[in-house]
This record gives sequence, structure tokens and C-alpha cells, in this order.
Amino acid sequence: MRSSSLLGRFLFLPKNWYNSVMNNLEKITPRLLKGFKDYSQSEQVARQKLFNSIQQVFESFGFWPLATPTLEFAEILLGKYGDGEKLVYEFEDNGGRAVAMRYDLTVPLARFVALNKNQLSLPFKRYQIAPVWRADNPQKGRLREFYQADIDVVGVDSFLADAEVILCVCSALESIGVMNYKVRLNDRAVFAGLSDISIRIIDKLDKIGLSGVEAELREAGVSDVEIRLTQELLAGAGKASAEESVVMPERVQQILKVLHKEKEAGRLSGKIIFDPSIARGLEYYTGMVFEVVLEDKPEFGSIAGGGRYNNLLDTFGNDSLPAVGGSIGVDRLFQAIYNADTDATSSLVKAIILNQTPTLQVEYFELASELRGKGIAVELYYFSDKLEKQFKYAEAQKIPFAIIIGEQEMASQQAQLKDLVSREQKTVAITELAKFLQ
Amino acid sequence: MRSSSLLGRFLFLPKNWYNSVMNNLEKITPRLLKGFKDYSQSEQVARQKLFNSIQQVFESFGFWPLATPTLEFAEILLGKYGDGEKLVYEFEDNGGRAVAMRYDLTVPLARFVALNKNQLSLPFKRYQIAPVWRADNPQKGRLREFYQADIDVVGVDSFLADAEVILCVCSALESIGVMNYKVRLNDRAVFAGLSDISIRIIDKLDKIGLSGVEAELREAGVSDVEIRLTQELLAGAGKASAEESVVMPERVQQILKVLHKEKEAGRLSGKIIFDPSIARGLEYYTGMVFEVVLEDKPEFGSIAGGGRYNNLLDTFGNDSLPAVGGSIGVDRLFQAIYNADTDATSSLVKAIILNQTPTLQVEYFELASELRGKGIAVELYYFSDKLEKQFKYAEAQKIPFAIIIGEQEMASQQAQLKDLVSREQKTVAITELAKFLQ
Repeated sequence: MRSSSLLGRFLFLPKNWYNSVMNNLEKITPRLLKGFKDYSQSEQVARQKLFNSIQQVFESFGFWPLATPTLEFAEILLGKYGDGEKLVYEFEDNGGRAVAMRYDLTVPLARFVALNKNQLSLPFKRYQIAPVWRADNPQKGRLREFYQADIDVVGVDSFLADAEVILCVCSALESIGVMNYKVRLNDRAVFAGLSDISIRIIDKLDKIGLSGVEAELREAGVSDVEIRLTQELLAGAGKASAEESVVMPERVQQILKVLHKEKEAGRLSGKIIFDPSIARGLEYYTGMVFEVVLEDKPEFGSIAGGGRYNNLLDTFGNDSLPAVGGSIGVDRLFQAIYNADTDATSSLVKAIILNQTPTLQVEYFELASELRGKGIAVELYYFSDKLEKQFKYAEAQKIPFAIIIGEQEMASQQAQLKDLVSREQKTVAITELAKFLQ
Repeated sequence: MRSSSLLGRFLFLPKNWYNSVMNNLEKITPRLLKGFKDYSQSEQVARQKLFNSIQQVFESFGFWPLATPTLEFAEILLGKYGDGEKLVYEFEDNGGRAVAMRYDLTVPLARFVALNKNQLSLPFKRYQIAPVWRADNPQKGRLREFYQADIDVVGVDSFLADAEVILCVCSALESIGVMNYKVRLNDRAVFAGLSDISIRIIDKLDKIGLSGVEAELREAGVSDVEIRLTQELLAGAGKASAEESVVMPERVQQILKVLHKEKEAGRLSGKIIFDPSIARGLEYYTGMVFEVVLEDKPEFGSIAGGGRYNNLLDTFGNDSLPAVGGSIGVDRLFQAIYNADTDATSSLVKAIILNQTPTLQVEYFELASELRGKGIAVELYYFSDKLEKQFKYAEAQKIPFAIIIGEQEMASQQAQLKDLVSREQKTVAITELAKFLQ
């Protein structure tokens, strides 16, 4: 019999020999790339809850889901992100195409709309909750792979759409228990007459203060006229109405007016302020821009933001379509609010069927299946280990109940049901287990 | 005033001038990479339902979620996929590291377990529903980016775990309405004594038939002894018990026995057969292997599969841990079962508030918000377009109800509520709308 193959030889050789060969092979050190993260068990359960709550709020505003690919032709993405450009993961695929991993969810949306504009009814309202990749320097709250939750309204230029995007983002945050936040609202119209360099410096107001802004403007050789303009502009920061700030653009006034109604209902009371220093970088925004920060955790920076971009679609054809969008940095938010001690969840199953007797394993399997058929999530212990070990596993998994059935219990069709929290144990007919666990 | 910046200049120039500049810029053609796909509106709603149902079944069996990164060090992934190796998306990142996009969810799981083995309580049962990337030749049901839904049990070598993985995969399929499938079960122990080349040829039985297998074996110069062994082996195909097939391995017998109990309950009746031709390639499997095919759509190939791999963890260290897993090719399945005509969903919102009068826009906004606060998903039309146009939009979105409020209705606090399916219209007090729509 021929057994020259590696597999064939392994199968005929004793297990110890196999292990010794494997141990002499070069081992690969298990490790994660910098800026990438595993989300395990309780973390991922909590994270999925965030995704679900946000999704539900997005859908309640009439946004539909859209999924675009991870990879796009590099030319689709490049040229849209200004300084961010160098952070795009870009490479040549096996077919020699220049491809890139998506850097945000907005440019792929623009590509989708341009590709499908004849089939879409406008306004096109979509949401997408998906990861994006940026080869950024990892720091607090900043990973290289992270989920964003985006909503966009394509095809209308209306203050109602602007206001609704902001309200929807705020409602999504509140749905996951984030209440202590502030929305900073601006319109890029306030920067009319200012140079790019001035806008970049103004955008740093939060970090370097008014005197820092002035110093940097002078250092950059900005004209006196422009410095004065900047001073006037920034004097309006923090105001909530046109009466308080002469430089407040009309669109900001309209948005605040409609959200003010909301304020009366107590929802967004005092949470939205005009802030003429907000520029959102120098990307594709053309009008209203906003940023959301956590008041008690400012070190996480902006955890949501967005704005109006009425020209992005021009890149892909002759038709222009106005658009407005908002984006929640879900993973940054997750890092800001997740607490491993208090947020650890109990098991997703209601009970575990312990494996007391090897002769009953088929029956345990059948019972597990029967209970699941009745809607009870239930786990089965795979070996007839000592009960102590089985209880230890159940407790590590935070499973609420254990079902114990030995030969005797099976004969009488009566199970022992143990509450693993209170440690109380009672006898329950096997046929009544489902009812009891519901 | 200095306005040398592009932005500054745009803001001061008339819109027409801006558009003419944009139109003269080089346009980028919007297009998708071969093998990549957008999932829009109804498609993505239906797809998310698949994900949710599968997730719910996985959790009901006691699997916990895990999320691993899209990118891993290339060395972690390479050397595990045999022939598949050349399909891995591999590149050098901005920091000069050799990285790769995940090719499956199993190798990242092994890396995770190796990295965290001191914190895990065994058995470690996890699920992951996430995309993987393979630079495969696109064909029916085969994309380059597609979701897989995986479950794995790490740390035990038990036929109960094997059977439960198969049952869980079948239950997940049934939860999304897939009933007409067949599970082909094997144990790689049947290949003892056969060479790699023979196993590869046997794996093609389905496509080339028994005579085809024999012809290819002869052509490949396989020995007569091995050909006879192959013939004996394949004679056992399709049998469901050890009595019917002398070559059935013990583990397959045990699994069939326990799933036979299930069969009596009618769940998996006649759906699981022993098939000694199933090899699942020459990857990391060491014992039981299985594949699921759609009986009415065999052209989609295997839509789920899995098996036992007791040595994969050896690669990452000296400790060996047995493991078994199953994987559903969710996007392949989606393509097989989605029907754009019958599966198109109605809107995710219950009603749309039409925009009849510009003077009431703030009130419309407020009402929308109030209804959402009461749990009613509702959309707001952004402009006071002709009502005909607004109805057209609502119908395109398949929204069930329209709320119409003009000056008169607002004064009397009575809205017109129109059922967009039956076209019936009735008067409802604005304060009663929520109750009516619930």
C-alpha cells in the first residue's frame, strides 16, 4: 500500500510522533497588528447592542440600509480626504489593480449614487454601520479599524434635512445612554474670505485657545484684516441664537429654530450651540457642519459629526446632487463608555444541561434540542466530568440555571433544577422544564 | 481682504462659474471592482434578517460573539489554506509590515485562542458573522468579499460537540427558511492509506462521477491497490448507518446515532448522509468533515460546511487544543434564495408626514419627533412640493400611511390619514395619531 503522502504517513504514525514533529516546526507567534483589536464575549455583546440601538433609531427616521464593499478602486477614494489621504490603506491587488480599503462611508455612498442614480428615488436616505480603515497613529479612542454609523440624505438642500440628521444622531446617542454631550454647529459660510491656512488654525481653537489662534495666525503671516475677521468670528462662539451672535449664518439660525422646538420638549435642551470655530478639516463639506463631544470625556474628541456636502457627487459625473450626512464613531464611543466590570453580561443561554452519566448523552442532546425548539436557549456540557468542574464552567459563563439528570431522575422523569445565583435547587418534571425556564 | 485660497475664491464666485470649473475637471467613472457588490435597500434589509436569524440560533446553542480584525500579520494566515493560499489578499502596509485580509474566520480564531488561552474557560464556544476576502474567479454565487457565519467549539474532542455543530448549522439554515438541503458527512479517517492526489480526485466525485474518478486515478498513476481501496470506500456513499456501510468510521456512527434521535423528532429526517467522498480540500481538518448543499440549487455548491481540526492551534505554540467548527456561506446562500420580486420589503417606517405648507414645517418636524418618541417610525417630507410628487415618493418607498396637515387641519388639530395601499382616507385627531398607527 502506497502511503507516500504526508497525510497518509501522519495517519499511520503514532500521535506522539506527530506531536514531536509539530513541536519542531517553526512556531508563529500569535499577535495583533498595532491599532487593531479583538472584541471578545461580553465586549462584543455590548458592542452589538450599540449597533442594534443605533440601527433602530436610524430606521425610525426613514433611513434604509446600504452595504458597499470594503475595497474600491483607489481612484474613487483618493483626492477626497485632504490631509487624511496618506492614511488610506492602498495596494495593488492580484490582478494589478490599484485598490483601497474604505476610509469613510461617505465617498463610497457618492460612488453608489453616481452608479445607480437612474434607479434611485430622491431624496435617497440611507444608513450604513460598517468598519472603515485609517493608518492613523493609534492613541486613546483611535484605532486603525473602527466602525462608523452613518446616515445621509442625498438629493435635497433643506434645513429640515440638516436638522433631522443632527436630531437623528442625537437620538441614536441617547438610545445608548449617552446623555452628557454637546453639539457644536457651524456653517462653512462663516469662513468666506478666509484662507485655508486661517481655517485650519481656527479649527484648533478648542486645543490652543483664542490667544493661541492669534499667535499662530501671526506666525503664519496672515494679514491683519483676516486676523480681525477671525477675532470677530470667534467672538460668536457658544451663542444659541441670532440675537446673541451677529455672525450666525442663516442656515444655522433655521436649524437652531427647528431644534429649539425640540428643546422645548426637553430633548436637546441646551445641548446644541453655534460654534464658528468648527470646520471639520478641509474635506468635502460645503455648508452646515457639526461635531459632537462628550462633556465628561473631552479627551475622546469628536465622537460624532457631519455636515452638508453639495458638490461631492460632481466628481463622478456632470450631475450635481446636494447631500447632508452625519456619522457616529461607534468604536470610539464604545471605548469611551464601556466598563468591563459593570457591563459584563450574563450568558446568552438560560440553562446548561449537565452531563452526569455517559449513558444518557443521547438523551441530554435530545432534551437540549427540545428545549431550544420551545424557544429556550440552552447549552449542553460535552463530557461526564466531575459535577464540580461542570458547575465551575457554568459559573464562569454566568449561566443562570443548571439541569441535572442522572439515571434515577431519567427513570422518574424528574430533573433537578439548580439556580446558580441563589444556589437553590428544586425538582421539576422534565416535561415542565420549558415552562419553568420561560 | 485676502482670498487666495481655493475655498475662499469659490465662496465669492457665482455658482455657475463653480459648476463650469467642476465640469472641466477630470471626472472619475463610478464603478465596482470585479467580484464586489453593493447591497441596497430591500436586498440589505433581507440580508440583515439572515444575519439576525442565524445569530439568534447560534446564541441559543450557547455560542458567544467574537470580533477579530480584518487585517492580520500575513504570517498568521499563510501556510494554512493549501491551494487557497494564492487567493489571499496580501500587501505591505504603510509601516512596511506584511499584512493580509482574513481569508476565513477559523485561522483568526486559532490566533485569538493562542493569544488569550490563559483567560479562556474551556470549552470556548464562539460565533462570528463577518466578511472574508478571496481573490477567486467570480462565478455564480462566488464573490471576492462575502459574509461567513461561523461557530466553533475549542477545547474538547467529543462527538457531542461534532453533532451539535452540525445541528446548529442546520437549525440556522431552517430558521431562514432553507429546508431543502442535504448534509454530507465524513471522517477523514476513511482516507487512511490514500495519497493526497487520490483524496483530491475522490473529492471531485460529485462533479465527475465514479467512472471519472477511476479514470483520473489511473491517469495520475495511482497504484492498483489504492484504486481498489477507493472503489470500496466510495461504495459506502449515501448510507445512513453502520449496518449499511462497512467502511463507516466510528465517529460518523456516533454522530449519526445522536442526530438520529433528532431525526425521530422529524427535524433532520433523511437530511444527513454518510459520504466518504467528502474531503473539504486539504486544509486544516483532521477528523469529521461535513458539507451542506441545496437539493434544488446544486449549482451553488456547498453553502455550509465544516469539520474537526485538532492540530491548527499547534502552529501558534506548544499547547494543542482540539476544535470543531461549522461555517455558513451567508452571501452565497443569499444569492441562492433572494428573490427581488417577492422579497422586496415595504418601508421601515409606518407613516410619512407630508409637507403641505412651508409655514408649518417646524410643526411637521415637531410632530415627527413626537411620534418617534412614542415608538412610531415616521418620515418627514422635506419640501412643500406638489402633493402628487410627495405621494409618488411615499409609494416608491412603500410607506403604508401618509399624514396630511394643512393650515386648516392644524387649526382644528385634525389630520388627514391616508392609507396608501387601500387609498382610504380618514380624519384623525393629531393627538390620536400615535395610537392609531401603533
